Amino acid sequence: MAQKIRKIGVLTSGGDSPGMNAAVRSVVRTCAYHKIDCVGVYRGYEGLIDGDFEPMDARSVRDIINRGGTMLKSARSDRFRTTEGRKIAFDNLKENKIDGLVVIGGDGTFTGGLVFNQEFGFPVIGIPGTIDNDISGTDKTLGYDTALNTAVEAIDKIRDTASSHNRLFFVEVMGRDVGHIALNAGVGAGAEEILIPEENLGLDRLLESLLRSKASGKTSSIVVVAEGDKTGKNVFELKDYVDENLEGYDVRVAVLGHMQRGGSPSCYDRVLASRMGVKAVESLLEGESNYMVGIQHEKMKLYPLEKAIKGKTHINKELVRVSEIMTT
Amino acid sequence: MAQKIRKIGVLTSGGDSPGMNAAVRSVVRTCAYHKIDCVGVYRGYEGLIDGDFEPMDARSVRDIINRGGTMLKSARSDRFRTTEGRKIAFDNLKENKIDGLVVIGGDGTFTGGLVFNQEFGFPVIGIPGTIDNDISGTDKTLGYDTALNTAVEAIDKIRDTASSHNRLFFVEVMGRDVGHIALNAGVGAGAEEILIPEENLGLDRLLESLLRSKASGKTSSIVVVAEGDKTGKNVFELKDYVDENLEGYDVRVAVLGHMQRGGSPSCYDRVLASRMGVKAVESLLEGESNYMVGIQHEKMKLYPLEKAIKGKTHINKELVRVSEIMTT
Amino acid sequence: MAQKIRKIGVLTSGGDSPGMNAAVRSVVRTCAYHKIDCVGVYRGYEGLIDGDFEPMDARSVRDIINRGGTMLKSARSDRFRTTEGRKIAFDNLKENKIDGLVVIGGDGTFTGGLVFNQEFGFPVIGIPGTIDNDISGTDKTLGYDTALNTAVEAIDKIRDTASSHNRLFFVEVMGRDVGHIALNAGVGAGAEEILIPEENLGLDRLLESLLRSKASGKTSSIVVVAEGDKTGKNVFELKDYVDENLEGYDVRVAVLGHMQRGGSPSCYDRVLASRMGVKAVESLLEGESNYMVGIQHEKMKLYPLEKAIKGKTHINKELVRVSEIMTT
Amino acid sequence: MAQKIRKIGVLTSGGDSPGMNAAVRSVVRTCAYHKIDCVGVYRGYEGLIDGDFEPMDARSVRDIINRGGTMLKSARSDRFRTTEGRKIAFDNLKENKIDGLVVIGGDGTFTGGLVFNQEFGFPVIGIPGTIDNDISGTDKTLGYDTALNTAVEAIDKIRDTASSHNRLFFVEVMGRDVGHIALNAGVGAGAEEILIPEENLGLDRLLESLLRSKASGKTSSIVVVAEGDKTGKNVFELKDYVDENLEGYDVRVAVLGHMQRGGSPSCYDRVLASRMGVKAVESLLEGESNYMVGIQHEKMKLYPLEKAIKGKTHINKELVRVSEIMTT
Repeated sequence: MAQKIRKIGVLTSGGDSPGMNAAVRSVVRTCAYHKIDCVGVYRGYEGLIDGDFEPMDARSVRDIINRGGTMLKSARSDRFRTTEGRKIAFDNLKENKIDGLVVIGGDGTFTGGLVFNQEFGFPVIGIPGTIDNDISGTDKTLGYDTALNTAVEAIDKIRDTASSHNRLFFVEVMGRDVGHIALNAGVGAGAEEILIPEENLGLDRLLESLLRSKASGKTSSIVVVAEGDKTGKNVFELKDYVDENLEGYDVRVAVLGHMQRGGSPSCYDRVLASRMGVKAVESLLEGESNYMVGIQHEKMKLYPLEKAIKGKTHINKELVRVSEIMTT
Repeated sequence: MAQKIRKIGVLTSGGDSPGMNAAVRSVVRTCAYHKIDCVGVYRGYEGLIDGDFEPMDARSVRDIINRGGTMLKSARSDRFRTTEGRKIAFDNLKENKIDGLVVIGGDGTFTGGLVFNQEFGFPVIGIPGTIDNDISGTDKTLGYDTALNTAVEAIDKIRDTASSHNRLFFVEVMGRDVGHIALNAGVGAGAEEILIPEENLGLDRLLESLLRSKASGKTSSIVVVAEGDKTGKNVFELKDYVDENLEGYDVRVAVLGHMQRGGSPSCYDRVLASRMGVKAVESLLEGESNYMVGIQHEKMKLYPLEKAIKGKTHINKELVRVSEIMTT
Repeated sequence: MAQKIRKIGVLTSGGDSPGMNAAVRSVVRTCAYHKIDCVGVYRGYEGLIDGDFEPMDARSVRDIINRGGTMLKSARSDRFRTTEGRKIAFDNLKENKIDGLVVIGGDGTFTGGLVFNQEFGFPVIGIPGTIDNDISGTDKTLGYDTALNTAVEAIDKIRDTASSHNRLFFVEVMGRDVGHIALNAGVGAGAEEILIPEENLGLDRLLESLLRSKASGKTSSIVVVAEGDKTGKNVFELKDYVDENLEGYDVRVAVLGHMQRGGSPSCYDRVLASRMGVKAVESLLEGESNYMVGIQHEKMKLYPLEKAIKGKTHINKELVRVSEIMTT
Repeated sequence: MAQKIRKIGVLTSGGDSPGMNAAVRSVVRTCAYHKIDCVGVYRGYEGLIDGDFEPMDARSVRDIINRGGTMLKSARSDRFRTTEGRKIAFDNLKENKIDGLVVIGGDGTFTGGLVFNQEFGFPVIGIPGTIDNDISGTDKTLGYDTALNTAVEAIDKIRDTASSHNRLFFVEVMGRDVGHIALNAGVGAGAEEILIPEENLGLDRLLESLLRSKASGKTSSIVVVAEGDKTGKNVFELKDYVDENLEGYDVRVAVLGHMQRGGSPSCYDRVLASRMGVKAVESLLEGESNYMVGIQHEKMKLYPLEKAIKGKTHINKELVRVSEIMTT
């Protein structure tokens, strides 16, 4: 049977995402609500090893719900990949009388938490914080909604200038392994073509598509490309290819980059973070461990960390079809 | 068996919401994709009676996916509530060889569409476009996500000045009958108290809550109030009540008003609109009628208009609890 | 000759405005640059009397350049209007070895500073922080540019819904005594009519103007009204008047309110704040007092506080004419 | 004496900038106000040669004041660099009875207009539309203010993630020949270092500056780099240099790119555009030619096109100093 939890630690790890601060705030305030102590751990697992802890109460998290990034900082930790490193982390937790951990991040974060639990039996609950929406067991990850809005607003601006000059823009958005951002931001921004890792359109079909688009009277085009797309080596190569093979195009490239990770979170992400923080803390209090808090069909659910790590998300085929219809 | 659909009309009706233009665009382009004709009807059912029609092709809807409001305009129509009015509308549709209708709006819009179908057997599919999220059969209505972001961004600004001056603000958001916007924007903006039509907190408990908040060290407060809240007659009365009954408060009022209906739609609303438009047109083509297109657990679903109209949405009790925990 | 300044206090007072934090940051960092001490005074003159001081170094002002409101808080101070109150403030300053003061605010703030200097010979430099742009001696006040953008973005959203429904909106913006925000935001938002305190259009001419606008084919209208406009008692009365005297209008009201005071400052306001803070500190170091730092023709200038207080700003007649031409 | 102007043409040319649409709207409405005809010329001088004209009245420019890009499109025109091309353009203008031209763009645009006037005596007035603020004779060019806000908002987002990860970012902003955007956006975003074409910091001093910043306790840094900076070949080379020469840094690059040219114009740019459009048309009506409309000390001024083309803008030395003080 689970021991009683009296003090919870919370950390953020991996790439930051908008809503992480709101999740930290929720964890801290839920602890306060249940009259248990809460400790912020700085720089993810690295801070766990360094004992970089700070007691937090409801006031510590004032005015952070609307801020991007993470006040607890994030970091990679090679030491936490070693048994020695994890042993030190465990000792630090025990010494500080922390008896449960909420880890906010992506699958690397969850893997760390799971291994840690398996070695030391330490209770761990995960919150999926990543803009990529590539965690199975949750309909949405924290930060994804905000990143989509950031991408779409940037592409709207690019379209202004593309339309004025009858230009073709390749716009690279984040997504090394998955095309969720590219597909949704592409549809949202009215892109003429969307290139994602899950489907290799092929350079020939890209050219055909552009020609068809031009023939239909379009004078400017936006092609949204996920980082991990395999059609070209990258957006610059795509530009070169089109420059060489299509006449009468003025082709440009835009790489949206890290701005997609920042910014004030959308209302959706703030609310999701608040709900997930409550569920994470209360799950620990109920003696649960090794679960991720997910949202499924608008409801909070626990999902095994192991499945969250191994599971894959799938591109929405219906939306791929919608994107094709929209570029008629 | 359903007759073959060759020409579809599309209209927007009732209060406008961000994403309506994106939905119109999707309907028009899906028609183009299936090589059937599409006609835009101006000013909702009023335009149906006046024959205010315009043929639309893929190019007609360029550059509208990111625009708030509705290019087709919206209007109330008393005439459409009469049999005579609807008869004229039907004649106009027949004369223009339109054999299916996509109506975008809220429950008033759907009621009109349903009655029209019952009288004339005319195929009608609805798309839920309203910022209130008060339509059953869909997890989200079109425009709701954008309205939440608009409200939260405005309240963030108000909080800046509230914090600087240690003030208490009552902020009224839209929601005459339902508190979805108030509850979500309130949690998203970190409101100290949220007043919704579904629950009457009572003026005494409001005072207690404010006193508790002050005792806990908070020096400024935001109370988000849905239009339809019954705690006070309205935000101005709430202010007066607190002015009279609590000392040492500098109380102000902000009514967010119609700006919540406008603005460039969020990525979520643009994608939702694109998906719903495709589903609406293809449902007509498949011979369906009297359904609303909804999103349920991330998937497009048909839901009977009759149930959509009569059904009620329920406030998310879990989120009400989260809001209470957050204000610890 | 002026004594050598070794420690500077900085405070914000009066209504807050976006850019105040950036100005505080600049004052603090300029002190650090010149290797003199800096002390933040909380809650304006009230904190001066209460000795609510906090030493600040370059790190104290991290991450505030982009935040609305003022981290030093602001407050009204009735006590500072008394000789006794000011005497206590002076004693606090001496006790803390503070020998110069930068006061950020509007004319009330400057009046307080000037009286204080006249009584105690204490060096005071002012920075004009107010959204109203109603201080003479500076082309722009801090926060004005941001407030204009906030107002225009809100009116853009209102126009979306106004256009969709063929409605007339009276939109009230800030400006009790001056119409700068109304005139500029009105021109920027493409308002059909702009009502400012400096000119009483009169209700009859307002009706004429609206009729002319309708006759010219406009189906929706935005009238921007400064708080202090005398045409009607207020926007609600204006609505009632038009409701009674013009047929066929659906008239609505929107009061933008305090959101105009908040929000992340524009680049212009951040740069202006940074420049003014440097100039304020360096003026104190050069032995100056009783001046406001202003921007005139893109350059930093000192302007006597006495003239800043008594001076009046004038509405830009050329822009009034431009606004009339634009509504042709 | 100048002949009477009865019909004015307006075109946009060169790189587009936010506010161009607002300027076109103003030109069109000022013509309507003075009851003279107005013709929109598409694709700049290219459209002048192709006779790509469209009569415009007050209604043609509805709902464009808040839109980025240019509805008249822009293009480069090699043909207009030839006498033959310009002759055709002149014939087109005469044939269409157009007797004055407002050209909106940068120095290339003005050069074209000046040559055209010198050859054919055709009245030309310029409006400075470029985000670079590199035209002498005007305190601000149209679009500059908006571009600064776009850049600063993007860098704010990048800072969120930079701070969370203790990273160093090189952020490239526009400015091939001038550093106005880099300097102002850099100060506005609180950059630790700003690299501009006007000053070559040198790689050694950049390293020193970064080391000093780190020593002072800063854990993340933003370096804003103008496109035309000579310190490194480009931002990627800067990253490589720091990677090789500084230990313990996680260096990243962000290129803001063309999004800086788009987006809804700020209130400032909308108002400036409205004023400049009026002044341009009325100058033509008063018989003026070969002038650019500028804003100097908040007032509309005519400035000879010849001087605008040859003149150089200078970096604000005071602001360079402010930027250094801010990074103390």
